[in-house]
Amino acid sequence: MNKKEDFILTPRTIYNFKPQEKIVYDAIIIGTGIAGFSAAMYAARLGLKALVIGEMSGGKITLTESIENYPGFVSINGLKLAELIENHARDYDIDILTDIVEKISKKKDNLYSVSTAKKIFTGKTLIIATGTVENKLNVPGEKEFTGNGVSYCAICDATTTKNKTVAVVGGGDSAVKEANLLAKYAKKVYMINNEPNLHAEKHHLNNLENNIQKGKIEVLNSSNIISINGKSSVESVTFMKDNQKKLLVDWIFIYIGQTPKVIGKEIRIKTNKNNEIIVNVNCETNIKGVYAAGDVTSTSWKQAIIAAAQGVTAAFSAYNHLTKKRLRGVKHETN
Amino acid sequence: MNKKEDFILTPRTIYNFKPQEKIVYDAIIIGTGIAGFSAAMYAARLGLKALVIGEMSGGKITLTESIENYPGFVSINGLKLAELIENHARDYDIDILTDIVEKISKKKDNLYSVSTAKKIFTGKTLIIATGTVENKLNVPGEKEFTGNGVSYCAICDATTTKNKTVAVVGGGDSAVKEANLLAKYAKKVYMINNEPNLHAEKHHLNNLENNIQKGKIEVLNSSNIISINGKSSVESVTFMKDNQKKLLVDWIFIYIGQTPKVIGKEIRIKTNKNNEIIVNVNCETNIKGVYAAGDVTSTSWKQAIIAAAQGVTAAFSAYNHLTKKRLRGVKHETN
Repeated sequence: MNKKEDFILTPRTIYNFKPQEKIVYDAIIIGTGIAGFSAAMYAARLGLKALVIGEMSGGKITLTESIENYPGFVSINGLKLAELIENHARDYDIDILTDIVEKISKKKDNLYSVSTAKKIFTGKTLIIATGTVENKLNVPGEKEFTGNGVSYCAICDATTTKNKTVAVVGGGDSAVKEANLLAKYAKKVYMINNEPNLHAEKHHLNNLENNIQKGKIEVLNSSNIISINGKSSVESVTFMKDNQKKLLVDWIFIYIGQTPKVIGKEIRIKTNKNNEIIVNVNCETNIKGVYAAGDVTSTSWKQAIIAAAQGVTAAFSAYNHLTKKRLRGVKHETN
Repeated sequence: MNKKEDFILTPRTIYNFKPQEKIVYDAIIIGTGIAGFSAAMYAARLGLKALVIGEMSGGKITLTESIENYPGFVSINGLKLAELIENHARDYDIDILTDIVEKISKKKDNLYSVSTAKKIFTGKTLIIATGTVENKLNVPGEKEFTGNGVSYCAICDATTTKNKTVAVVGGGDSAVKEANLLAKYAKKVYMINNEPNLHAEKHHLNNLENNIQKGKIEVLNSSNIISINGKSSVESVTFMKDNQKKLLVDWIFIYIGQTPKVIGKEIRIKTNKNNEIIVNVNCETNIKGVYAAGDVTSTSWKQAIIAAAQGVTAAFSAYNHLTKKRLRGVKHETN
């Protein structure tokens, strides 16, 4: 299963939803993940004219094989969940564009402009739902072998690890979860963790314990990667654990956290020390008319269900800002 | 379709999940709606021993025919969504009890006790997800005709309104939504709204407009109910609109908002002027170890998706409180 191909084959990636440069949108939503499409669906239900701009249909959840914690779905493929939520939004009259937002700026009359390389859109409110990007190890070999043994996406490459030896770098929730996934395919999985312990959901740790007992996974704590080595593809990894060690591996999967893809520094959007956009319970940022939702925000828990709820909340807040709680009247009466 | 019967027939209402008085639960979740079961599912995934206690399986969403705004489901029956989320939680090892919580109190060692009429349970943390109860009109006839023409649940009684004339009292989102539902069955639906305008999601107002054009619904704004009249069942409603008027109706559906079912006043849980439990972004209340989620909280938007996310957030916060961010280690190593 090559993830990229799946991706291109799904009909939902054909973006032909007439983004319009000449109109003023009620809301421009930046990001096409769970948060962005949830925001779009509610915005449309609330009668707002919305444009969604994003680079990657479905967002990062599409890189996860199995989501077991979105209430309502005992277990669902990440790509499938993203597709359901996107199609849910597409059930309404929204405009969509696949593109990279390069800049946002303030205009006159409390309007914002959102620019991609070739287009400029205008909106009364913005919802930033740009998510995060994977952290890099920044060691020799990482960059040159990316795609040739270095991967940031287990679900994309798991099946090609059949009978191979792989390393997963990291010790958090994602690292443990993806190590368990890889153990279904690979001959052997080594977890290389720079901390003295793993820290992950009990559920994932239980699965890990099973894999350890079966001899499928071994955990190396307090271990720091020095380099990734090979000729045309990855052949080994060098790391420091008490002293320098070398492990022969065919693949290295790197799960060492994410960095928020913050947009809006130009308009002085406020971020915290983790570079996350600071939002309150209503998903309001420090700037009037600008909201944020999902993994890019200061929410403590980066979960699909929370991203969806934040998207919904941001849409409500945008609606409230635009209507200033004006009652929307239906005047038809009987005497 | 009699809702009560449906309810009894569904297998999920058989609560046989061994609530235990002798153990100390990591988390006692009060409420068996979307928020409560979402909290339970996550609590279990995080390795917490959880008990869920509630009066009504599935909570208030079961009284809604069609949910169109839970991201991932373009349209789903409320009872069905509740069932999916409950079954999702039941997929994990949680204890469940159908009962009414009468009192909670603080014990020694930072423990809480939760009492029903006959049982007392002990927990290290509490998650309050008790939801809301429907507001009453408090006019003559309302109480005596409840169940005989006065209803607070359109989905429960819609089919019995076939070829009848009905009134819906209220002017908000729920009133408009349920008037549209009733228009599918009833001969004629009058909306009696005490404000000068309706205020609801554009989506629902569009449907209403269709029904008005078809002559199925008429809206009476600025109208205050004086009494509900009849012999053995509802025959008419008297209201004030400029002057006193009477309308012949067979059913009256009352949708004038809800009141939070707050639990925890005994332990001085803090509420706002709407009597909602005040929570922060992490669903923490003013009391350490006590969290709240869903419609009972101060969240501005009472939506299923937000209740689910709050349940999840409350479970995380309980977990964090219990583990104090202690790293959960797996020590198996390779040398």
